[in-house]
Amino acid sequence: MDAVQKAGSGHPGMPMGAAAMAYVLWTRHLKHNPADPQWPDRDRFVLSAGHGSMLLYSLLFLTGYEVTLDDLKQFRQWGSITPGHPENTHTAGVEMATGPLGQGISTAVGMAIAEQYLAARYNTNEATIVDHHTYVMASDGDLMEGISNEAASLAGHLGLGKLIVLYDDNHVTIDGSTSLSFTEDVCARYEALGWRTWHCDGMDVDAVDGCLVEAKADLDRPSLIACRTTIGYGSPNKAGKSSSHGAPLGADEVKLAKEALGIPEGPFWVDDEALAHFRRALQSGAEHQAVWEEVLNAYTSVQPSKASEFKQWMSGDLGKEWLDALPSFNDPAATRESSAVIINAVAAALPNFLSGCADLAESVRTHIKDGGDFEKGAYTGRNLNFGIREHAMAASINGITLHGGVRAFGGSFLIFSDYCRPSIRLAALMKCPSIFVFSHDSIGLGEDGPTHQPIEHLASLRAMPNLNVFRPADGNETSVAWKVALESRQNPTLLVLCRQKLPSLTPGMVTKHPAERGAYVLREASGGVPRVILVATGSEVSLAVASMERLESEGVPTRVVSMPSWFLFERQSAEYRKSVLGGAPVVSIEAGSTMGWSRYAQAHVGLDHFGASAPADVLFREFGFTVENVIETVKTVL
Amino acid sequence: MDAVQKAGSGHPGMPMGAAAMAYVLWTRHLKHNPADPQWPDRDRFVLSAGHGSMLLYSLLFLTGYEVTLDDLKQFRQWGSITPGHPENTHTAGVEMATGPLGQGISTAVGMAIAEQYLAARYNTNEATIVDHHTYVMASDGDLMEGISNEAASLAGHLGLGKLIVLYDDNHVTIDGSTSLSFTEDVCARYEALGWRTWHCDGMDVDAVDGCLVEAKADLDRPSLIACRTTIGYGSPNKAGKSSSHGAPLGADEVKLAKEALGIPEGPFWVDDEALAHFRRALQSGAEHQAVWEEVLNAYTSVQPSKASEFKQWMSGDLGKEWLDALPSFNDPAATRESSAVIINAVAAALPNFLSGCADLAESVRTHIKDGGDFEKGAYTGRNLNFGIREHAMAASINGITLHGGVRAFGGSFLIFSDYCRPSIRLAALMKCPSIFVFSHDSIGLGEDGPTHQPIEHLASLRAMPNLNVFRPADGNETSVAWKVALESRQNPTLLVLCRQKLPSLTPGMVTKHPAERGAYVLREASGGVPRVILVATGSEVSLAVASMERLESEGVPTRVVSMPSWFLFERQSAEYRKSVLGGAPVVSIEAGSTMGWSRYAQAHVGLDHFGASAPADVLFREFGFTVENVIETVKTVL
Repeated sequence: MDAVQKAGSGHPGMPMGAAAMAYVLWTRHLKHNPADPQWPDRDRFVLSAGHGSMLLYSLLFLTGYEVTLDDLKQFRQWGSITPGHPENTHTAGVEMATGPLGQGISTAVGMAIAEQYLAARYNTNEATIVDHHTYVMASDGDLMEGISNEAASLAGHLGLGKLIVLYDDNHVTIDGSTSLSFTEDVCARYEALGWRTWHCDGMDVDAVDGCLVEAKADLDRPSLIACRTTIGYGSPNKAGKSSSHGAPLGADEVKLAKEALGIPEGPFWVDDEALAHFRRALQSGAEHQAVWEEVLNAYTSVQPSKASEFKQWMSGDLGKEWLDALPSFNDPAATRESSAVIINAVAAALPNFLSGCADLAESVRTHIKDGGDFEKGAYTGRNLNFGIREHAMAASINGITLHGGVRAFGGSFLIFSDYCRPSIRLAALMKCPSIFVFSHDSIGLGEDGPTHQPIEHLASLRAMPNLNVFRPADGNETSVAWKVALESRQNPTLLVLCRQKLPSLTPGMVTKHPAERGAYVLREASGGVPRVILVATGSEVSLAVASMERLESEGVPTRVVSMPSWFLFERQSAEYRKSVLGGAPVVSIEAGSTMGWSRYAQAHVGLDHFGASAPADVLFREFGFTVENVIETVKTVL
Repeated sequence: MDAVQKAGSGHPGMPMGAAAMAYVLWTRHLKHNPADPQWPDRDRFVLSAGHGSMLLYSLLFLTGYEVTLDDLKQFRQWGSITPGHPENTHTAGVEMATGPLGQGISTAVGMAIAEQYLAARYNTNEATIVDHHTYVMASDGDLMEGISNEAASLAGHLGLGKLIVLYDDNHVTIDGSTSLSFTEDVCARYEALGWRTWHCDGMDVDAVDGCLVEAKADLDRPSLIACRTTIGYGSPNKAGKSSSHGAPLGADEVKLAKEALGIPEGPFWVDDEALAHFRRALQSGAEHQAVWEEVLNAYTSVQPSKASEFKQWMSGDLGKEWLDALPSFNDPAATRESSAVIINAVAAALPNFLSGCADLAESVRTHIKDGGDFEKGAYTGRNLNFGIREHAMAASINGITLHGGVRAFGGSFLIFSDYCRPSIRLAALMKCPSIFVFSHDSIGLGEDGPTHQPIEHLASLRAMPNLNVFRPADGNETSVAWKVALESRQNPTLLVLCRQKLPSLTPGMVTKHPAERGAYVLREASGGVPRVILVATGSEVSLAVASMERLESEGVPTRVVSMPSWFLFERQSAEYRKSVLGGAPVVSIEAGSTMGWSRYAQAHVGLDHFGASAPADVLFREFGFTVENVIETVKTVL
């Protein structure tokens, strides 16, 4: 309450109400080493109720992470390591950024998937080198959000027994009592989803402890412990009320609360005995890690190659050999088809590369052949069947990626990127190199019609900071897309693929393909000096080439630029960018919203309205994706 | 199967498997009049599993809507009224566009809310003028999507007893058996959510009928009838398999299926007796409507003003009186605060104007004072508490709006528009004038940090076709935003509001405010000829004005353009647009992504990276939203 009071904003209620259960978890159960926040076999702790960040920062301070008391005093200030909501990029010990509700618990499902996969792949009868829990603290809001039901249904289906959720069942949300809007039987719902559940008094440390002991003992089902707590516990006038949720208690109320709790009045007081008690985590953590390192050493001598693989993957290093596996293409193919070839080639070279799809594996072409399904009791399977749960898929991919040791991607149609958007954004914010594969990327999907035809999606995703949206024009650009995606360490990548067959525009090329620069001159104008530049992406690059041929035949020297990734292009030097898009008027061609293209082009062939249901070739023709219309558009800039 | 076969694409499995239950519903229960698809008291039927569109088109044809056999033959073709997925804008009798799973069932919750509200408001002991059910046919995918759990939890909480869902429980999704990914106990989950549920044999018409009878009798709880069906029923080789889901059966298999079903081989055969049986809907529908009209006439003589109000609202006409209620503003205020004043003024003038919020009513300022809460047993309440369920809120607002007789809006923070995006898109596609109010629209929200600070949201929403994104700069522009939103009949509107206090830039203005044109000259340059034009939106317009003053003092004639709505501005004449943004270099100022601004401006003050956690004034300063930085940017274009 002191930190929130000093900041003048924040959320005291949750930390005060959930302190008891956090205490139990962090002092009696959580396996972690504050001196090495990246220790691979640590338990993962996710504060899904990210607004309770001060609880997490307090725990990090108390148990001996890098967070100091001074950092707590800088809560929510410019440049501090204690921002308003937890951010993994700011604070060691924070596993992920949370705040948008439902994301934490759903991302944790991915972490638990990664743990199960790695345990199944590496553990032997003699040595257990992967064996940790994923703990979540979740609020009413987390459990109301649809994404968490998707994720919980998936976790129950997969039997993720090492996932344990402490539900801060405080009966209060921002607008007041949960009786206003949330009266379902949460535990019954989770039971229906295949979870084991408990009700307990969340203010009773032994009750919480008993549930945690039982939850850890059940390895067949994920666990939800509904802990009945009092939000703002200790505050005489605000405990149990929504007024304690999202604003400082006020100086007077802080004083009263301290009196009621029997602690000294001065701000940021820390009891020495309590601190010493929490700081035992440093010793027990070091011991846990030492034991684990011993086991790993023994494992290394018996299983040297597997141990080496495990260590390399946990470091995030994929090596270089897989680069040789990237195929090159010479024949016409849909980019989703080329992607399938690449996925399988890469999968053969990268053991911990997993595929996932939201019930469209056949269409998006995501399946790793002979990879098996990741299923309860078959956790070495490399194909994740997410069901029709795009949002939980995206969050799970984030969780798998954040966990480390595994790289995974999730697939669906581009239109359904809308369902994933909050998780894609979080990946970008967390600098988490998640990979998403979205096919059926335009009106080219044809008859399914406008509910399934992306229009504004490329523009709206390109607007997101730190997200690489990559829309390849042929098989070799698709290889580049995968290369870039897998090499990324600091940003997520979205592969945007088409349904329909495309010509091979860059046959034979794969190493040092200029698509790695985001945009490049695919066809130079005759004489080397263009009168017009056509810039296009994906399936429209071949239309640009056909239009160029006609224009050249009519005496207009025309350059074609393929621009699969704005993100990468904007990282190039000004000189390079000018060499690609400078020196002549530019016309953009893309089967989607023209929003944003004015940055590069003076005229556009695009789609600023919804699509329609008809065969794809009819739609392209009716909507102006023809050589004739491109030439008409070129005339407006000449 | 014939229509899908002829189209060469489509989804035969669902229509064939769900035909029996559709038959029961449409011939024994559904209250509708094919001759008047807009009859206000019709039951609403939502095919949430929109890929089964041919089932719906068949029913429309069989029962006598405008869909003909020839239309069925034009399935999925350019210009037909039988597109791949149902679209309310194409086909009379289709209540909404479906296809993206989870949307239909969630939108139906809104329809049921509207029915309950109108029934509570208008029915008397003597006359029941609003009394209809909302029926949904939903697939596994609908129930896997998170949005549907949000909506179902809400429906259970509200006790929407006239909402009945037939769940096409066919154990098959695209990737194969539901055993791959979906093994939860669906009925137990819905029971936990407060629903009444049944399991029945969905191929047994009397079993389905019996459940429907019981479901209709239970007015306290929404109903889910899990109908065990066989996808592709009748196809000897594909029934029960995912191969029947999303592709034509093939000519040979169609022939075999017809043999198995005992129907003639020729395509598009319709049994005369069956047709006559279905077409009875015309007579029974006319009778139902006639009875209702009699009741309405009687009601009209007893309750003339209420009857007149009801009829006017059902026609979508809000009258003109509410326009006089729109307040004007002279004092500094956050636009969310001005919006609260407007909401309450409008609510006093418009009886069927409802407010909704996703647990942020205090922050977004959505509450209708003295409007009461819409709650189980208190359905005249005008404040909808959606809980932390943004996606279901957005779908529900669509459903309420589509139902008619009510206008409602949903509120949250702009960052959470990402959670609503699939439903916002559907509103735009459906030409449904839903209203969404999103506050805390920039880094101006301050300390909550980057997880809560919208950056790319304005750009990504502006890219969506047929969506009016309106970001007002002061109280009077906020009045205009509400005016435009409520007058819209063909497009949804998004009000984008700020948290922080803003100066009044257009004091006293409200009628004929130029903001209705989307953009206008707020301050003309001295001498009337600008050397530079500053264009800004929302909270940055006052920064533009401050910058103008400095520039003018330094001898640079500067025009300031306020541009709350690109959508409206782009509908103005070229001449008007030129008069606003022509004649001088343009610099855009907006606390968000610069994506798209190149259409209007040559230089930008914007934010192409994530925000940070700190007080708002620090963030604006650190991120360059200062007069000094605007002037530096202006220099680059002079």
